[in-house]
Amino acid sequence: MVDILHRVGVKTSAPARVYDALTTVEGLADWWTDDTKGIGDQVGGVLEFRFPVGGFDMEVIELQPAERVVWRVVDGPEEWVGTTIEWTLRQDGDYTIIVFRHRGWKEPVEFMHRCSTKWGSFLMSLKSLVETGEGAPAPRDVQISDWH
Amino acid sequence: MVDILHRVGVKTSAPARVYDALTTVEGLADWWTDDTKGIGDQVGGVLEFRFPVGGFDMEVIELQPAERVVWRVVDGPEEWVGTTIEWTLRQDGDYTIIVFRHRGWKEPVEFMHRCSTKWGSFLMSLKSLVETGEGAPAPRDVQISDWH
Repeated sequence: MVDILHRVGVKTSAPARVYDALTTVEGLADWWTDDTKGIGDQVGGVLEFRFPVGGFDMEVIELQPAERVVWRVVDGPEEWVGTTIEWTLRQDGDYTIIVFRHRGWKEPVEFMHRCSTKWGSFLMSLKSLVETGEGAPAPRDVQISDWH
Repeated sequence: MVDILHRVGVKTSAPARVYDALTTVEGLADWWTDDTKGIGDQVGGVLEFRFPVGGFDMEVIELQPAERVVWRVVDGPEEWVGTTIEWTLRQDGDYTIIVFRHRGWKEPVEFMHRCSTKWGSFLMSLKSLVETGEGAPAPRDVQISDWH
């Protein structure tokens, strides 16, 4: 099992603001993908994220307001199904620290390398959304390669 | 042991151009840090990268022109010393694909999460340098958190 790990700090924010951007359809649509549907603020809810090519369904499996969000991938690319995505939030001075883990990849395939870079880019979109009001969700996301 | 993995594609480039940006002091200074010294184009050479806070010394341990570069960290933060940084290059259609691995972290400490996101950001700087002639090296790098 191998994991994708990231850490960003959102300036002059609060954990509750980042938590909202991770648990509401409006928030998620503003940094990850315009085409977001479902329920993100209840354990057992399912979020449906769609991109110009493909998408993911995530079941919300843990919520601790302003502290922690965990999703399990229930549909999407074969490599993603069964993996978990964990968000941990805390305040350090002026920054809300986001510690991100996408856990449980079976193998470090090249697609995983690409997803690692792309998650980093989307975390910067989330940071930008909370700091400035403007993210870069799909389909206006930053292109990192031939695989978008 | 845990690894940081990334993958980006550089448009309308060639592996030799990216290889130059990984093996010459001028190239490295244009995407990673202004303050780069040493020898990057010979096995056994040592590159010295310095940032506003801290830095790294890397020994070049493998070079395959336009295909592969491997460095071993010989000085720097305790968590980095002894780890290896591997760059693999190939052409896929219009894109030069960079597969990046920072291998051999002892533990997935929070600093490793930060370095993962920061490497992704610097890979985008490298991509930008080769595509447009302009990267974002330190001290003009993208700030991702309180830890810069």
